[in-house]
Amino acid sequence: MQPIQIGILGYGNLGRGVELALQHTEDMVLAGIFTRRDPSGVQPVDSAVPVHHADKLEEMEGQLDVLILCGGSAKDLPVQTPAYAKKFHVVDSFDTHANIPEHFSRVDEAAKTSGHVGVISIGWDPGLFSLNRLMLEAILPQGTGYTFWGKGVSQGHSDAIRRIEGVQDARQYTIPVESALEAVRSGKTPHLTTREKHRRECFVVVREGADKDRITKEIQTMPKYFDEYDTTVQFITQEELDAHHQGIPHGGQVIHTGKTGANGEHTQVAEFSLKLDSNPEFTASVLVAYARAAYRLAQEKQYGAKTIFDIAPGYLSPKSPEELRASLL
Amino acid sequence: MQPIQIGILGYGNLGRGVELALQHTEDMVLAGIFTRRDPSGVQPVDSAVPVHHADKLEEMEGQLDVLILCGGSAKDLPVQTPAYAKKFHVVDSFDTHANIPEHFSRVDEAAKTSGHVGVISIGWDPGLFSLNRLMLEAILPQGTGYTFWGKGVSQGHSDAIRRIEGVQDARQYTIPVESALEAVRSGKTPHLTTREKHRRECFVVVREGADKDRITKEIQTMPKYFDEYDTTVQFITQEELDAHHQGIPHGGQVIHTGKTGANGEHTQVAEFSLKLDSNPEFTASVLVAYARAAYRLAQEKQYGAKTIFDIAPGYLSPKSPEELRASLL
Repeated sequence: MQPIQIGILGYGNLGRGVELALQHTEDMVLAGIFTRRDPSGVQPVDSAVPVHHADKLEEMEGQLDVLILCGGSAKDLPVQTPAYAKKFHVVDSFDTHANIPEHFSRVDEAAKTSGHVGVISIGWDPGLFSLNRLMLEAILPQGTGYTFWGKGVSQGHSDAIRRIEGVQDARQYTIPVESALEAVRSGKTPHLTTREKHRRECFVVVREGADKDRITKEIQTMPKYFDEYDTTVQFITQEELDAHHQGIPHGGQVIHTGKTGANGEHTQVAEFSLKLDSNPEFTASVLVAYARAAYRLAQEKQYGAKTIFDIAPGYLSPKSPEELRASLL
Repeated sequence: MQPIQIGILGYGNLGRGVELALQHTEDMVLAGIFTRRDPSGVQPVDSAVPVHHADKLEEMEGQLDVLILCGGSAKDLPVQTPAYAKKFHVVDSFDTHANIPEHFSRVDEAAKTSGHVGVISIGWDPGLFSLNRLMLEAILPQGTGYTFWGKGVSQGHSDAIRRIEGVQDARQYTIPVESALEAVRSGKTPHLTTREKHRRECFVVVREGADKDRITKEIQTMPKYFDEYDTTVQFITQEELDAHHQGIPHGGQVIHTGKTGANGEHTQVAEFSLKLDSNPEFTASVLVAYARAAYRLAQEKQYGAKTIFDIAPGYLSPKSPEELRASLL
């Protein structure tokens, strides 16, 4: 059988992660990387992989089974996903939660009118976390769900610190408050404020002569980003930052606690958690599994936009339904 | 809109759990309990619920939207699920892993030829744990999956102890070995023997004059049940057993660790865990959510046998797809 031909649009951390994930699939191959940069400046992990300018996608209709869109949610995907869903089956990781309904509608229209599958908002949140929120709420409706994030790097918060005058470099970690986690895990259903759920840890490199007190204060009082959290600021050297804070770890947990019994006397606690050394590489791995699903949905002509809620889990696996029932059920 | 009419066949701990779970659904109602016992001897939690003899199901065709089968996997479900799938949309919790392929085939044939949906092997293992095994293996194929069970009561092991001469009553707990759990959670992929994964804790009440040393030895050397495990035996009074060991707690975890990166340099750990005060009530809650899914699949004429692998998560929730995307994705 001909392996599924995958294209990648956008070769940052996520696109690179998709390339790496595809090295471990037997039923899918990377047909090409497409970039809006000068292709000669893009070095794939496997130098045998062809790199083309994104314009070349115009000519690729019929040659790619699924195009995985690896751009950003702010500017790239709102334009790219509906546009490319007219020509390809696509998968994206659109993660601006508030704009998902609009994004879905636009991709759905493009995909349905052209006969394509558009799988959106794939990854872990939105993605696997969403799936757990939905399933656990449906199973334990008399219950309360919590989502915690971290310990992990927030690029947005790191960038916000870097924009402060006198800051040369910075790395921000989001960390769940351990006592809140423990309370929820024990089956309690506390009302938790923003401050009670997560704290923020900042590692900052300053330029010579910068006022550290002012920078600390500017960080800790920054509206939305930091003012609603307990935030610690630690000043380190560029060498220390480079040596100890170059990874992109993340993770978190969805915890749902519910009551059952004639008088709610039984507490049931379910938790899905992730501890990721590399956030983009894990997200990329989820995208690749859902690219397989997109291909199969397309074979069945189940066109239109889909989210993780709309796709039966069996579509993700290269194994046959018989094999899955015998080995994993 | 008319609520979904649910029938329950079999009123043990699981059937009772289904009745209780249905008290918290707005779109589903319990139309009746069916039993092979004398119906007058069955006391539902809500005395307004009609209780009929199972024979009455013959006349109920068209009056129940979904029948939830709450019998045992050893003798009841292999007969009941294929038989009732000829007349009703059904959901069961068939959990004899080795016989699932055969059970699936028989239910599939009955359901397809008669135009029904038969959802089998629903619960948490098989069920939610299977779902996590499948998804995590598909996402991180360069990885290793582990399933741990407990701390929880094993009815089968408790029964096995009760059959020993001189034993009046017993309760057995299956407990994951903490050091194994910690090793796996840390991203290591140890090869674990049966003994290294779980231990067994037994609370035993003996008849007057019984030889405790012999009983301990008989338990610890019982083939399959105990001989491959580190098993502790503690003798207590019937009063102590009744006071402290009447619950049916259970739980466990599916942990999958995978490697990503150009050289497998990043460890990714995913875990799904359950801590249940009541195993049958939680299983019942899962059955009820999948009864909703069975009803919807039937509306779409997606007939035949289905497992948790074949059903898109969105079918489980009473919320509309739009509402789910806006609130939970």
